[in-house]
Parts: sequence; C-alpha cells; structure tokens
Amino acid sequence: MQFTASQIALLVNGKVEGDPNAAVGSFGKIEEAAAGQLSFLANPKYEDFLYSTSASIVIVNESLELKQPVSAALVRVPDAYTAFATLLSKYQELKTQQLVGRQEPSYVSPSATIGQGVFIGAFAYIGENVTIADNAKIFPNAYIGNNASVGENSIIHPGVKIYHDCKIGRKVTIHAGTVIGSDGFGFAPQADGSFKKVPQIGNVVVEDGVEIGANATIDRATIGSTIIRSGAKLDNLIQVAHNVEVGNNTVIAAQAGVSGSTKIGSNVMIGGQAGIVGHITIADGSKINAQSGVSKSIKQPNTAVTGSPAFDYTSALRSQAVSRNLPELERRILELEHQLKQLMAERTTI
Amino acid sequence: MQFTASQIALLVNGKVEGDPNAAVGSFGKIEEAAAGQLSFLANPKYEDFLYSTSASIVIVNESLELKQPVSAALVRVPDAYTAFATLLSKYQELKTQQLVGRQEPSYVSPSATIGQGVFIGAFAYIGENVTIADNAKIFPNAYIGNNASVGENSIIHPGVKIYHDCKIGRKVTIHAGTVIGSDGFGFAPQADGSFKKVPQIGNVVVEDGVEIGANATIDRATIGSTIIRSGAKLDNLIQVAHNVEVGNNTVIAAQAGVSGSTKIGSNVMIGGQAGIVGHITIADGSKINAQSGVSKSIKQPNTAVTGSPAFDYTSALRSQAVSRNLPELERRILELEHQLKQLMAERTTI
Amino acid sequence: MQFTASQIALLVNGKVEGDPNAAVGSFGKIEEAAAGQLSFLANPKYEDFLYSTSASIVIVNESLELKQPVSAALVRVPDAYTAFATLLSKYQELKTQQLVGRQEPSYVSPSATIGQGVFIGAFAYIGENVTIADNAKIFPNAYIGNNASVGENSIIHPGVKIYHDCKIGRKVTIHAGTVIGSDGFGFAPQADGSFKKVPQIGNVVVEDGVEIGANATIDRATIGSTIIRSGAKLDNLIQVAHNVEVGNNTVIAAQAGVSGSTKIGSNVMIGGQAGIVGHITIADGSKINAQSGVSKSIKQPNTAVTGSPAFDYTSALRSQAVSRNLPELERRILELEHQLKQLMAERTTI
Repeated sequence: MQFTASQIALLVNGKVEGDPNAAVGSFGKIEEAAAGQLSFLANPKYEDFLYSTSASIVIVNESLELKQPVSAALVRVPDAYTAFATLLSKYQELKTQQLVGRQEPSYVSPSATIGQGVFIGAFAYIGENVTIADNAKIFPNAYIGNNASVGENSIIHPGVKIYHDCKIGRKVTIHAGTVIGSDGFGFAPQADGSFKKVPQIGNVVVEDGVEIGANATIDRATIGSTIIRSGAKLDNLIQVAHNVEVGNNTVIAAQAGVSGSTKIGSNVMIGGQAGIVGHITIADGSKINAQSGVSKSIKQPNTAVTGSPAFDYTSALRSQAVSRNLPELERRILELEHQLKQLMAERTTI
Repeated sequence: MQFTASQIALLVNGKVEGDPNAAVGSFGKIEEAAAGQLSFLANPKYEDFLYSTSASIVIVNESLELKQPVSAALVRVPDAYTAFATLLSKYQELKTQQLVGRQEPSYVSPSATIGQGVFIGAFAYIGENVTIADNAKIFPNAYIGNNASVGENSIIHPGVKIYHDCKIGRKVTIHAGTVIGSDGFGFAPQADGSFKKVPQIGNVVVEDGVEIGANATIDRATIGSTIIRSGAKLDNLIQVAHNVEVGNNTVIAAQAGVSGSTKIGSNVMIGGQAGIVGHITIADGSKINAQSGVSKSIKQPNTAVTGSPAFDYTSALRSQAVSRNLPELERRILELEHQLKQLMAERTTI
Repeated sequence: MQFTASQIALLVNGKVEGDPNAAVGSFGKIEEAAAGQLSFLANPKYEDFLYSTSASIVIVNESLELKQPVSAALVRVPDAYTAFATLLSKYQELKTQQLVGRQEPSYVSPSATIGQGVFIGAFAYIGENVTIADNAKIFPNAYIGNNASVGENSIIHPGVKIYHDCKIGRKVTIHAGTVIGSDGFGFAPQADGSFKKVPQIGNVVVEDGVEIGANATIDRATIGSTIIRSGAKLDNLIQVAHNVEVGNNTVIAAQAGVSGSTKIGSNVMIGGQAGIVGHITIADGSKINAQSGVSKSIKQPNTAVTGSPAFDYTSALRSQAVSRNLPELERRILELEHQLKQLMAERTTI
C-alpha cells in the first residue's frame, strides 16, 4: 500500500508543506528512515535529523520553525506523535481487515460456523461446533478445539492453541504460541506416594478487548471457568492457573504467574516475574512490583507491595536499604558489646 | 453423549431418587448448571442451590436430608464428590478413547509404525522410524521427530514438539506447545570471547504415567538421557535442562527451572518459579518453596527449604520476620550507641 | 550412516588399534554403549568400563596404557574428548546438510525467494516476499511471516513463529516453539482506566551465529528494531521485550527476562530467572547472577551483581550471610538493651 502526503494529511487532519504527491509505503525512525518511508518528529532533540533524513514524508508539529530547507514533504499537525500513532493504528487495522478468505490446506470441521470477513490461514485447525465470528482472523498453524468460539474482530496469531469449550470474546488479540485451556494442575496424593489426576472439565473465558502475549499459558478451570475480564492486558510467558479470575483492565507483565483460584481485581498492575499464591484475593488497583512473591490476600485497594514474600512497598524499600548495610550493622553491635563489657567490668571494680 | 440418571447410578453404585430417565450431556457447578447438565452437592454450605438449580441430575450424599422439594433427579452415593470425580475421569477417558483414525492432511513417514486405536490429527507430523503405540492420541499440529516413540495410551496435545530419538512412555500426557528434546544449552568459551556449540546428542526419556503441562521445555542430554521418572507431574512453562533427572512422583509447579545435570529424588515438591542450580542432588521428599533459589545439594530427605539463596524453612521464616523490622532494629542500635556514648562520657567525668 | 574405525581415524587424525573395519552408526556413553556404537574414554576414572564396554569403537588418549585386552576397536588421538566432540559436530552438520527439498503439504507464497539446498518441512508456512537463503532448514510447522528473511545455513526448528518483517541472519539456530516478532507490550492508559494499544511497527533483527532456545519470546520494536547481536546465545523460555539490544556473544540462561528498551553490552552473562528492568544499560562483561533483579544501569564493565534488587556481588553475599543470622542479631540487641538499662538504673542510684 502506498500513501501520498495529501492522503496522509487527510487522515490526520494536517496540512502539507512541500510535494503533495510524495509517496510512502512503510515507516521508519527519523534517524534511520529511507526514501519511500514515512517518519515523524516530536522530540526537539531529534530536529537535526529532519534536515538530513531520507524519509519521503515527515509528520511535524504545527509550531515547528524550520532552520534549514527540508527535502521531505512535511505534514503539519497539532501533535506529531499522536498523529503518527493514530496513522499506524489505522494502517494496521486496514492491513488486518484485508486478510480475508481461507488458505489451503486448512482444516475446518463441517459443523463449524464461520462468519463474514473471516481469515483462516494454512494449517489452521477449526474443530467441531466451533464458532468463528465475523472479521476474526485465524493465522496459520493455529488450533481451535471442539465447541470453542472466537468473537468478532479477534486476532488469533500463528500457532495459538485454544482447547475445546473455551470462549474468546470480541476484539481479543492472542499472540503466537499461547495456550488457552490446558488442564489445570490438579492431582490428588495417593497413599503410595503417587498422584491421581483430578479431571479438569471447566473452560477458559477471555472477555472483550483482552490482549495476551506470546507463549503464555492459561489453564482451564477444574469446574466452571478461568476468566480474563474485559480490557486486561497480559504479556508473554505468563502463567494463569485454573479457576483464576483476572479483573478488568488489569495489566500483567512478562513471566509473572498466578496460582489456582486466586481472584485479581480490576486495574491491578503486576510486574514481570512476580508470583501470586493460590486461593487469595488481590484488591482493585493493587500494584505488585516485579519479582514479588505475594503470599497473602491484599484487601486494601491501591496497595503497593514488593519483595518475596511481598509486603508494603515503602517499608519494604526501607528494609532493603538497611539490609544492604547488614555487615556494618553487625560490626556496630559487636562494638557495642565490647564497650558494654568494659563498662560492666569497671562497674564491678567500683 | 447423553447419560440417564439410572445409567449414572449404575456407574457410581448409587440410588436414583426422582426421574430415572432424566438425561444429561455435560457438567456444571450446582449454582450455575443448566437443564441437561449433571452437578453434585458435597459441601453443605451450597445446599440452598440444590432447591433452585436447573441441573437435570444432581449427585448427593446418602446422608442428605431434603428440606424442600427438588426438581432435579438425585443420585445418592456415600461420597458425592468422589463419585462425581470418578464419573468425570471415566467420561474423559471415554471421550479420548473414541478419538481414532487419521485426519487429513497429516504427514506420516512410510517407515513409521502406528499401533491400533491411534489418533493422528490434521497437520501432525510423524517422522522416520517413529513408533506410535496402541491407543496413543497425537493431536493436530504436533511434531514427532525421527526415531522418537510414544507409548500406549499416551496423549500428545496440539502443537507439542518431540525432537528426534526421544522416548515417551505409556499413559503420558503432554500439554500443548511443550518442547521435548531441544538442544541442551552447552557452549564452550573461545579465546576471542565467542562460544562454540557443544553438540547435544543424547535424548529425553519420559517414563510411564508422567504429565507435563503446556509450553514447558525439556532439553535433550549432551550424551545419555535427560530423564523424567514415572509418575512425575510437571506444570506449565517449566524448564528442565540437559542431563537432569526428575525422580518418581516428583511434582514441579509452574515456571520453575532446573539447571543441567541436577538429580532430583522421588516425591520431591518444587514450588512455582523456584530455581535449582546445576550439578547438585535433591534428596527424596524435599520440599522447595515457591520462588526459592536452591544453590547447594539437599542431602537430608524430607528437608523443607525457602528463600533465594534457599535454606532451612523454619530458620528462613524467622530471618524473614526479623528482616521486615530491620529499620526498627537499626533505630534500636542507634539508641544503644547514643546511651552508651553518654555512659562512657560520664565515666570519664567520674 | 555407518562409519568404520579407519574412516573415523581419518576424520580425527588418529590411529586405529584393532579391527579397522569395525563400524558404528550412533554414539553412546562408555558405560552404556551397545554394539554398533561409538564411544570415548577421556576421564581415567571410567577406564574400567573400557574393558567391559559393548561399544564397537572407542576413541582414547594416545597416552592410555591398556591393563587388559579390549574387544572394541580403538582410535588413539592426543585428546579423546576434543576428538569426540569434533566428530559429533561434523556428524550433526552432515545430517542437517542432507535435509534438502520440500515436504508436502507445505505453504510457500509464490512471491517468496527460496535458495539452493533449502529444506522446507511439511506444514511449514512461508509468507509473501520472504527470502530463505541457501542451505537454510525450515522444519515442519514453522511459520515465517510476510517480508521476513532467514539467512544462509540457519536452522528454524519445528513450530517456530517468525512474524512479518523480521530478519534472521546466517548460521542462526532457533529451537522449537520460539516466537520472534510478537508485539511489544505497549499500552497507553486512558482516563477511564482502560488501555489503548500503542502500535508496534518495528521488527526483530537476529544477527549471524546466534542460537535461541525453545519457547522463548522476542518482541518486535515499537519503531526500529529489537536486536540480538552476532554470537549471542539465549536459552529456553527467555523474554526479550521491545527495543531491547542484546550485545555480541552475550549469554542468557533459561527463564531470564529483559524489559523494554534496555541495552545489554557484549560478553555479558545473565543467569537463569534473572530479570532486568527497562530503559537501562548493562556494561560489557557484566555478570548477573541467577534470580537477580537488576533495577539500575550497570556502568562499570565486568561488574558482578546478585540479589533482588541486585547489587555488588561480594557485598551482597556478605549481607546474605548476616541475613541468615538475623534472629541471633536481634537477640544480641535485646541483651545489650537489657544490660544498658541496668547500667543506666545503677547510674541514677549512684
């Protein structure tokens, strides 16, 4: 796809300065962009690059005063960064919407229901009684198990595996390699030291507007549903165990893990590699620092915690600071003991 | 599949109360179940739901005394939860056993040996000289490399990758996306700062009755075998490095990692996100807490450890408790120093 | 493939002792090897196995003096272990080079450019305008998105997903299930508590000679490139966020994670499960211990750090040592307080 400077100006409500027919087909940073690329200048410290860039079109702030001539066509807008980001979003939506139809070979069960404007990539597998709603995009090598469903405008990237009976909402994005609906980790210890599997017959429900990163795992519930509420954003390599509930607009960074049956509130922020034990609740708006280990419920909304085991952020930081001086602290205690011993000795002398 | 109340009673050795022809096709929690679903009541605190549930059949304890009329057919058994779990297990086995035959397109090397009752899903890849034993189920998009084997009644979920020469035992379950037999992480440092790969020519042996979660990775041995002993249960996103041995009935929770050549005994429990360094041994029955970092061998069986670096559980907990009060401890030392200074000053005055 | 003792002697510059026509087709440890296998003896403590081994050929040190007759053919070299490793490398290269051609069904876009000696496995997906250079091997179920490229002699293992526009260099190995180029985790918080996706339009560049383990994730840059510099070695289940740069010959162990925009220098060693926050720089030659949490830039080359939050290795170890004795330290403070109180009391009496 090629866009001219005047087309771009139209899309972002801007004004062209220079050649209105200058055309671009991709994007680049202003310091690296080549001819045929669109760039933007928002931060004044990059202004020098504007005069040397090979980009064919650059989006700039209305207020910018040029100090030298510029070879690129300019598109002036009130806020260059926002205009650029808006353009990118539109461009990506457009590209995704253009993906329509079925590549072969793919496997679609005759009992599956496939909506309008759907894309099914090569080697994708659509099981029995599956519903793929309008404009959903199922990339190559993805697997959608029996009785599962994918909502409108959702994007299932290559190699995602969605087990039977799981429900994916609308405008959901799931990145490559992620597994939805694998069995929860439930085993009953037996008298001989072995373990007997507890059947996992629930499912996973992913609500509207959720985004899940690559190679994450979300286990199905033992009974009932593991639920990711609308608007939640989960990063790569995250583990969500059976019967967990993740609240609306909660954000979980990469490699964090949540153990079974824990309920996480809305607008919670969980840092990378943090771990949360099972069967607890995390209040709305909590902030859990990276690498924390949360072992107890957080009952007060908007609480910040850190450490493993995690406790209140401010006092944890103070403890950590002292912790680094522990050898010095020990030396001071030794000195006190020495002095005191001396005083005690003198006392008996008196 | 539909089951009537009398069929269910037969399966779980129970007695029907109400319509023996009431029929169900799926399962639900008593508070959520719809018509056509089977539920159970074990915990008395849910008894109220029994009188309002839409479930068509409910399994209840023999001892239950009804306080109101119930519309569902009841099946009375000595222990409702156990009966329900047994039923689920049978149901899942039945469903899995019914999966037989080969979906197309799939790729099966002419030199592969395929047993009776095997299922091979679409886009599954079975390499040269592979053996798939009777009743094994290979789900879509799974990859079984040359000379590998999968034992009787094992289930290989979608997108599992088993590298060449690896051996999977009987009644093994491997969840979606897991990789068995990738190269161990072995690189010899060279004089110029670069690294030369150490060839990894061993394999992975997964013994009978093992279950491995989703998106886990188990590396092949440099020479010899990385071994997961019978009955071990590994959760999602676990890393097992080359030449590791995991003992019988050992349980490893999600996102834990074991470094190269470490030998883990039998009936060990390893918590989520724990890490174990290479070339050590972990005695039978050890308990390693979540997020621990084990840096030394555990020689005494049944030892519990926690922390990073990990040490004895009880004393670690005591240290952690004091650790939270470090700022207060430092204040007390300061106070002592102040008072002592005063005493010392007075002493010289005297 | 079968090799005789004289062929092996030729390959490793050794001398045959015994039957020059003894033949082997695979490898084994000297204590486990069967007839038809090649083994080696480097460590004198395994010498006893030499006299009982079933291996058909054993590579031994020139200097070895036999104490008993040996049934295997021997190949004598200056250094048995090095010779054996060299042989393995050659053997694996040979086996990989023999993989040529295209298995069916596979999906190759008509606009893709495929070099000489390339292997494309069944169910592999090669998108529009993709370039696969000479002798690259694309294993079954791998996905290469539009406009991506794979350099000469690179190996893309089963089920690897490379998103559109990503660039993989020469002699790169990527293990099964790894995802290259998924969206960076960028969301702008909105006034109503929801998040708006920041488009991720950069790519990932993996330079020559890099090896990446199984089920790792490397996100594409927001704009520009996430870069893995030549010779870097990344283990399984590693997370590399958007716009990160990993330096030449840097080694990252399993389950470690690097947050967005962080620049890691050359020859850095990062231990397993370590985490590094975003927007910092790590100096060349730094050593980051397993499970560390690095929250600040490391500016001094060759610095070693440990702990979470991480600080200087030596003082961290000292603090950890004192940390274990905290309950004892607290007891000593209590004792000091008690004695001091006594002294203070006596003073007023005087």
